[in-house]
Amino acid sequence: MKLLSVGTVAFDAIETPFGKTDKILGGSATYVGLAASVLNTVVDLVSVIGGDFPQEYLDMFTSKNIGIKGIETIADGKTFFWAGKYYNDMNSRDTLVTELNVLENFDPKIPAHAADAEVLMLGNLHPAVQLAVLDRMNQRPKLVVLDTMNFWMDLTWDLLMEVIAKTDVITINDEEARQLSGEYSLIKAAKKIHEMGPKFVIIKKGEHGALLFHEGKVFAIPALLLEEVYDPTGAGDTFAGGFVSHLAKKGKFDFETMKYALIVGSALASFTVEKFGTEQLQSVTPEMLKSRIQQFKELTTFEVEI
Amino acid sequence: MKLLSVGTVAFDAIETPFGKTDKILGGSATYVGLAASVLNTVVDLVSVIGGDFPQEYLDMFTSKNIGIKGIETIADGKTFFWAGKYYNDMNSRDTLVTELNVLENFDPKIPAHAADAEVLMLGNLHPAVQLAVLDRMNQRPKLVVLDTMNFWMDLTWDLLMEVIAKTDVITINDEEARQLSGEYSLIKAAKKIHEMGPKFVIIKKGEHGALLFHEGKVFAIPALLLEEVYDPTGAGDTFAGGFVSHLAKKGKFDFETMKYALIVGSALASFTVEKFGTEQLQSVTPEMLKSRIQQFKELTTFEVEI
Repeated sequence: MKLLSVGTVAFDAIETPFGKTDKILGGSATYVGLAASVLNTVVDLVSVIGGDFPQEYLDMFTSKNIGIKGIETIADGKTFFWAGKYYNDMNSRDTLVTELNVLENFDPKIPAHAADAEVLMLGNLHPAVQLAVLDRMNQRPKLVVLDTMNFWMDLTWDLLMEVIAKTDVITINDEEARQLSGEYSLIKAAKKIHEMGPKFVIIKKGEHGALLFHEGKVFAIPALLLEEVYDPTGAGDTFAGGFVSHLAKKGKFDFETMKYALIVGSALASFTVEKFGTEQLQSVTPEMLKSRIQQFKELTTFEVEI
Repeated sequence: MKLLSVGTVAFDAIETPFGKTDKILGGSATYVGLAASVLNTVVDLVSVIGGDFPQEYLDMFTSKNIGIKGIETIADGKTFFWAGKYYNDMNSRDTLVTELNVLENFDPKIPAHAADAEVLMLGNLHPAVQLAVLDRMNQRPKLVVLDTMNFWMDLTWDLLMEVIAKTDVITINDEEARQLSGEYSLIKAAKKIHEMGPKFVIIKKGEHGALLFHEGKVFAIPALLLEEVYDPTGAGDTFAGGFVSHLAKKGKFDFETMKYALIVGSALASFTVEKFGTEQLQSVTPEMLKSRIQQFKELTTFEVEI
């Protein structure tokens, strides 16, 4: 099936205890597109960039069969830019700069050949933009996956609830699940979120892994342990990207397929954090992915003895 | 094999959002003993109590084949007492009262029939007490499992390092592993702790599960998700108790057996938190445990498709 990924294509400037970058390629749609290309999933990006966005990045997308016809260029505008600094524990970060630029008036244009995509990944954007995308598809996609965050819960609750009602899978972190549901127990939180629309709830816990809830069933995965995390930027987007790309590739959305899609997303994300920005993800081969998935199996498998 | 559990037998008074208890039975050795009794593992407790400790609790131990000859009674002393209050998230708590009482001068006496126990569980106590126990065993046990905490790292570093050097398995939480090793990456932390003595490092992460490290290998388990946690008191001790009891029962200490022991400990701990204090753990049957271990299998199992 075809995947449509709506989100940001952007510049990031990142500082971690291991070093510092200039403006490099970033953005949620970028990571989803790269994840899809590792899995050889047909993907189109919908985003907006400024006249300052390098042609070489667009060429890189094209060389990896990532569709860029939905990336609008505002020639006299500047590309969305984020700068952030991570501290020793890599779990806390400060945002140093957020320049929305062309993203401020983002009016998503969906290329005709992609408007019938069966799988839609709505990246973390203003809920009004997410609603516009849903409205502009030829028909309701077979699977709508939503990424959002506490920011939109605080500022645009009603609009967000409209989007959530039209969503099959929502990905949020544990604190956001608690905020959205008003429940501390994650089991209860997932039940309440099911009632809002999404039949599948994915709770991202960073270094502690992720949970998938579906109609009373739960699946839990740990995060792969790495000697060193160099740059966590893009890990969540890579995770979501690997997840939707696997589902689009398989064309099946049952619980068992979702479980494995979670592993694929998590394995891919473990590459992203090994270098700055998209560098490592750009060089992942299917063989590398396969070997990392095997590591997951070893990390979690045990035999019942009693 | 025989298990010897050194730790506290105490009174706890607990307040959670779900209610409040008077002084009830608690203590690390108590939870380890009860865990052993579920698994039908031969166990002796070494601890100290005051004249105020109810005979009915001792009778309960005896009825469950938990050896109490190593529990010394100081007739004119008072039993160790802890009172604490948990807040909504159940992860933060305040200690309201800590009365060491007879624990202050705890001089562990090991009954002759237990001094040759093959498996020794050193509960979270002053490292000097832990060293005394090691010294008073007939010979070095085949397996020494150590529970400790940041408090002893802050106050009694050198003594603690002496105990750790004589330990096969250490159980600590992630922050303590980082403090002990000076490494943020848990993989690196485990390597450094291996060099201090323990060939096995267990990192407890509460609601996020646990990790087992051994010579470059890692095993990760999530925590079982419960609708509601009523009282987390004793969860860590039950976890350690289930872990050592399974190992003593099997008489094998290889990585595969340890992995399963981790599951047993975690499954047992999930019962403890369902009611106040030891109430639920006292009523767990082997069948209940088996069914909960099956839940673990369902929570974590996936098929590799790629």
